Amino acid sequence: MTKPIRLGMVGGGNDAFIGAVHRIAARIDGQYDLVAGALSSSPEKARASGQALGLAADRTYDDYKSMAIREARLKDGVEAVAIVTPNHVHFDAAREFLKRGIHVICDKPLTSTLADAKKFVALTEKSDAKFILTHNYTGYPLVRQARQMVAAGDLGEIRVIQVEYPQDWLTEEVHNKQAEWRTDPSRSGAGGSTGDIGTHAFNLACFISGLTPDSLSADIQSFVPGRQVDDNAHVMLRFQGGARGMLWCSQVAPGNENGLRIRIYGSKGGIEWAQENPNVMAYSPFGEPTRLITRAGNGMPPSVAHLTRTPGGHPEGYLEGFANIYLEAAALIRGTGDGADLPTVYDGLLGVRFVDACVRSSARNGAWIDLG
Amino acid sequence: MTKPIRLGMVGGGNDAFIGAVHRIAARIDGQYDLVAGALSSSPEKARASGQALGLAADRTYDDYKSMAIREARLKDGVEAVAIVTPNHVHFDAAREFLKRGIHVICDKPLTSTLADAKKFVALTEKSDAKFILTHNYTGYPLVRQARQMVAAGDLGEIRVIQVEYPQDWLTEEVHNKQAEWRTDPSRSGAGGSTGDIGTHAFNLACFISGLTPDSLSADIQSFVPGRQVDDNAHVMLRFQGGARGMLWCSQVAPGNENGLRIRIYGSKGGIEWAQENPNVMAYSPFGEPTRLITRAGNGMPPSVAHLTRTPGGHPEGYLEGFANIYLEAAALIRGTGDGADLPTVYDGLLGVRFVDACVRSSARNGAWIDLG
Amino acid sequence: MTKPIRLGMVGGGNDAFIGAVHRIAARIDGQYDLVAGALSSSPEKARASGQALGLAADRTYDDYKSMAIREARLKDGVEAVAIVTPNHVHFDAAREFLKRGIHVICDKPLTSTLADAKKFVALTEKSDAKFILTHNYTGYPLVRQARQMVAAGDLGEIRVIQVEYPQDWLTEEVHNKQAEWRTDPSRSGAGGSTGDIGTHAFNLACFISGLTPDSLSADIQSFVPGRQVDDNAHVMLRFQGGARGMLWCSQVAPGNENGLRIRIYGSKGGIEWAQENPNVMAYSPFGEPTRLITRAGNGMPPSVAHLTRTPGGHPEGYLEGFANIYLEAAALIRGTGDGADLPTVYDGLLGVRFVDACVRSSARNGAWIDLG
Amino acid sequence: MTKPIRLGMVGGGNDAFIGAVHRIAARIDGQYDLVAGALSSSPEKARASGQALGLAADRTYDDYKSMAIREARLKDGVEAVAIVTPNHVHFDAAREFLKRGIHVICDKPLTSTLADAKKFVALTEKSDAKFILTHNYTGYPLVRQARQMVAAGDLGEIRVIQVEYPQDWLTEEVHNKQAEWRTDPSRSGAGGSTGDIGTHAFNLACFISGLTPDSLSADIQSFVPGRQVDDNAHVMLRFQGGARGMLWCSQVAPGNENGLRIRIYGSKGGIEWAQENPNVMAYSPFGEPTRLITRAGNGMPPSVAHLTRTPGGHPEGYLEGFANIYLEAAALIRGTGDGADLPTVYDGLLGVRFVDACVRSSARNGAWIDLG
Repeated sequence: MTKPIRLGMVGGGNDAFIGAVHRIAARIDGQYDLVAGALSSSPEKARASGQALGLAADRTYDDYKSMAIREARLKDGVEAVAIVTPNHVHFDAAREFLKRGIHVICDKPLTSTLADAKKFVALTEKSDAKFILTHNYTGYPLVRQARQMVAAGDLGEIRVIQVEYPQDWLTEEVHNKQAEWRTDPSRSGAGGSTGDIGTHAFNLACFISGLTPDSLSADIQSFVPGRQVDDNAHVMLRFQGGARGMLWCSQVAPGNENGLRIRIYGSKGGIEWAQENPNVMAYSPFGEPTRLITRAGNGMPPSVAHLTRTPGGHPEGYLEGFANIYLEAAALIRGTGDGADLPTVYDGLLGVRFVDACVRSSARNGAWIDLG
Repeated sequence: MTKPIRLGMVGGGNDAFIGAVHRIAARIDGQYDLVAGALSSSPEKARASGQALGLAADRTYDDYKSMAIREARLKDGVEAVAIVTPNHVHFDAAREFLKRGIHVICDKPLTSTLADAKKFVALTEKSDAKFILTHNYTGYPLVRQARQMVAAGDLGEIRVIQVEYPQDWLTEEVHNKQAEWRTDPSRSGAGGSTGDIGTHAFNLACFISGLTPDSLSADIQSFVPGRQVDDNAHVMLRFQGGARGMLWCSQVAPGNENGLRIRIYGSKGGIEWAQENPNVMAYSPFGEPTRLITRAGNGMPPSVAHLTRTPGGHPEGYLEGFANIYLEAAALIRGTGDGADLPTVYDGLLGVRFVDACVRSSARNGAWIDLG
Repeated sequence: MTKPIRLGMVGGGNDAFIGAVHRIAARIDGQYDLVAGALSSSPEKARASGQALGLAADRTYDDYKSMAIREARLKDGVEAVAIVTPNHVHFDAAREFLKRGIHVICDKPLTSTLADAKKFVALTEKSDAKFILTHNYTGYPLVRQARQMVAAGDLGEIRVIQVEYPQDWLTEEVHNKQAEWRTDPSRSGAGGSTGDIGTHAFNLACFISGLTPDSLSADIQSFVPGRQVDDNAHVMLRFQGGARGMLWCSQVAPGNENGLRIRIYGSKGGIEWAQENPNVMAYSPFGEPTRLITRAGNGMPPSVAHLTRTPGGHPEGYLEGFANIYLEAAALIRGTGDGADLPTVYDGLLGVRFVDACVRSSARNGAWIDLG
Repeated sequence: MTKPIRLGMVGGGNDAFIGAVHRIAARIDGQYDLVAGALSSSPEKARASGQALGLAADRTYDDYKSMAIREARLKDGVEAVAIVTPNHVHFDAAREFLKRGIHVICDKPLTSTLADAKKFVALTEKSDAKFILTHNYTGYPLVRQARQMVAAGDLGEIRVIQVEYPQDWLTEEVHNKQAEWRTDPSRSGAGGSTGDIGTHAFNLACFISGLTPDSLSADIQSFVPGRQVDDNAHVMLRFQGGARGMLWCSQVAPGNENGLRIRIYGSKGGIEWAQENPNVMAYSPFGEPTRLITRAGNGMPPSVAHLTRTPGGHPEGYLEGFANIYLEAAALIRGTGDGADLPTVYDGLLGVRFVDACVRSSARNGAWIDLG
């Protein structure tokens, strides 16, 4: 048993959503110990949150810079830090840690601006520390299996990708912490639904298909009066090699909670997977009945076995998928794994390009915008 | 009991698919007697098919024009005719009957060219005979219920429409009668999947939402080498009043048989319905659990009761939905119903405009094309 | 084209349910002409119903006996008769026709008493006319395919059968024609839910598995105060050869419309099929992913092709399944088919034995009762 | 932040299944620290397993008795112990800890014999330490919500319970550690499927319905040649007050992984929930459309909010449900919660009675056996 990795956290205070998710994800496999944090931009809240989490008082920081400086000097300072703030803080926070050799696990989208995203790439290329972006849906075992099936040619030449991520929580005007920063362009970036969930859908399409996106045409909308960012987006995609796709993301689609769903069709078969019931995937070899492939069920390849914890039929969910990112990140940090399937800063840059292209395409009445 | 309507048929010979469907649809409720036919463009096949169907030899015609001329003179000649030929024949055949006062029930799409479609409108406007286009999916009871729910404001202001119709039967090169004319632009028209199934999806979106489409942007493809018409199409839609939509149709999506599915979202709720299991519809009032509304189940409005024949849980299907078009057509012909929900020549024109716009938009790299 | 079979009907007047179903089933394939009827035990209603159906006045009879006598003498009298009355009338009505050589298509359960059922068997054995019992669920194409798969050994040795048929329409006290006779032991027989729907479930289990039932143990209930027959039944089954089963039928299970569902498990695989979405069947070869077999889809055996009318993905339903019984009955009557898969009077006897055994077993606190 | 509870573990060595589950469940919410263990009955394996888990060498014990004695004396000895051995060890192991005031969290079924189960009750009644049985399915938030709905009268008077737990992993003869002890009556008890999974189904039925079981009639089988315990069981249940149930458990039903499913019907409504997709529950108020209630979705009562960690649509699964047992156990141990919904030793006794009654009833040809 290797000792747990000493983990710090930036953001994720008491009323945050995604910080708690990261903490559970880090805890599930016992690979991390949370030992320090700058948990809020409000010092009072940062301290209260640290206390609630049982952090030592002297390792509960008022701001991430102080934390980076001091932890880097400590003999048992954090080895890695999870950055779970609003988007516009990601880059500045990551810089403080990466330049001090502390590994960074960062929530998505990478940044709120394309300029920051490009700087982020340069930053990570200069650092010896590792950088992992939590496009957590790539951690689901069946998503990995799907990616391997595509790579193995089971679907033949990929032709069509249909991906969508509808939600409904912003159907009406909402006032709470989550809604506020996620609909504020100065914190979330120019994209609303495109940044918050569209990037996930886009990333998943690229991840499973293994295809490089070429260009997109978008029609984005803000249906709720007064909303400053998009809350619904229709996007057509072109991939290098000729495959085509459609992407829909929405936060105003009543009846949808987190309806991330992907379908990929090739010359030899098709697959379908949906996040809300992630333990089953439909696989349709052309001309044969559809197969229901289950997580950890008949036909699970050995290559994904390390990402499941329970037998088939005992459902795993969002937290386990998220934990898989942390699990592989731990291996990468320790040098026991290559992290080959982990989302990178380049995926992050591509995601920010996606948002930027959606906004620009829509402003130009759907003109095709290069993603290169 | 009113006597059955005397029905003729043009097309629908022995190896046709849709002709047999029309005949069953006409038969289910006992409202029609098939008494005459010009069942094939090949006289031999026309006669053999007439004999197989038990038609009298002297009412089995070699061509539709002879049929129209003679039946119009007979005392007990056909009162209505079903036209179930390939698309390019619809207009010429319909003209022969409409100008002689014989009602026409015609398969979709209306025509293979926009020019013909416009002439078709003029033709029907000059005729006293009725014209019904078999956009049969509008005959499903839950589709009617959905349309009424939208009209009643149950979904609030409509914002987003997602409609799709994937199939897989043309995933590879296919040689049979069905595939051949449907992929031959001289017979089917410039659209392949757009004409054959995209028009159904488009019509359904308009029918349920009650919205007038304004313009579209399309990216259409022919994935199978050598195919002369599109076999996959990605379309973004704008409706008057601000609602937006996406439409996907495909004949190269392995695992899909007839996956027509529609989702409509408004400011107050959403609905979802899929043709392959048409006896249930999900209705999600915003902020409340989703309801599963069943055909002929709890909450069926009296206005659709005449379109169901079995109690809830005894599934009705494609043929019954199709039969509902024939049932209401019979009432329209007899003057006992107003046919207010029946698809018209204007729906047909709009469908042909849809195909035309998809082809033109795609040729212009996705430029938005008016549908007006 | 052979001419349609001249069909009469006993029962099925204006306010009946199953009579209309039989008429549509007879009509769908154009194999029958309804030409005579004794449509109600009330002469006035019989006449009004005949008129509404367009029957000739002189072939609308006040009672089935007059009908049998006169039709047997007519040159173009009925060749077959559909008996769709309450259960207690089946035997007497059928006798009048069978003894005059008129084929009988009869609704289930065969009779309201075991004594009648035994006499029924003797009656049909003496008659040259054909007798068909409308256990209509056996007409679904996927049910046939399932039966063939079991017979071919695809499931290995059958071990376990789980079959159920829940409804909810009798959850509260109901007063309408349907409810009244079906809960009146003098008309429906000693069984309530067991007779009305349990017999269907039981028949389906035997039909698909090909197994002979040996004995049963039952616990039946009448939950609604004042109800004279069972409205819920729990039954354990033993089959010759060692397979075991459970059967549940209920008319007091809120949320269930016609939830007939069957699962069969053997040493090599399992299958599952449900009537409410009858166009798909799950097939699970042991150790492999589950397959979704669709009606008229990939892998449909030629032997069931005559029982489907639409391509895969264009759903067929209850009426088409019912029509398949009529279709094969027509072939049997004409001598062009052997009716090998049609439900017989022996199936009917077994069904009545099933009801009788449920009632007796339950009265004896679940004692195992032989079905032999 | 209260400090984590110091936890020990008995059983759960390297090749065990359920031990790893308990460890994750204990870890997810950060409420426990695993600090000691007697992880295997083989001392070598116990030590290797302890090392693999990062336990201190001096707190890795060769047997549970040594562990209990020493830990009870340590100042920072374990406060609670998880017992995850084969069934026949539960009682003896628990005794060592309970009598020393160490709380016990024990896997189910309670014991392998009824005699042990009765002694277990006496043991816990004498101890001040807490005892929690991990009937983990009761930890699913929607299961709690279902229980509350029944208690609130949403379903009216309960009439019918249908519960089942099919698996397929023992369809053929299997030789591995899991299969071996679970099919060995000396270790698992007289019941095979009845003990391993039937007890879960039975417990769930009682838990949600709030009903006291009265008696049962069973027909159990061992389909696989040579198997010493049941691998399939059919059970009819009677509850005090008149409700009736059926229970099916099987380990030889191909296509089923962990198909625990329950349906409960009352005079006013019905509910359905299945473990394999545990984030949704169908609720059917009689006479209204079925509602799909989602975990953490619209209509979640505040009383279950502490049992969910992610928003609706981000699925939670088996491990989170299991963790809820540990979470509430922690509160019970600390005195901050009353553990009112936690499974108790009495539930355990009832489960063992269930197994015993199944075996005895089946031996007596389905005689009704009291569960009192």
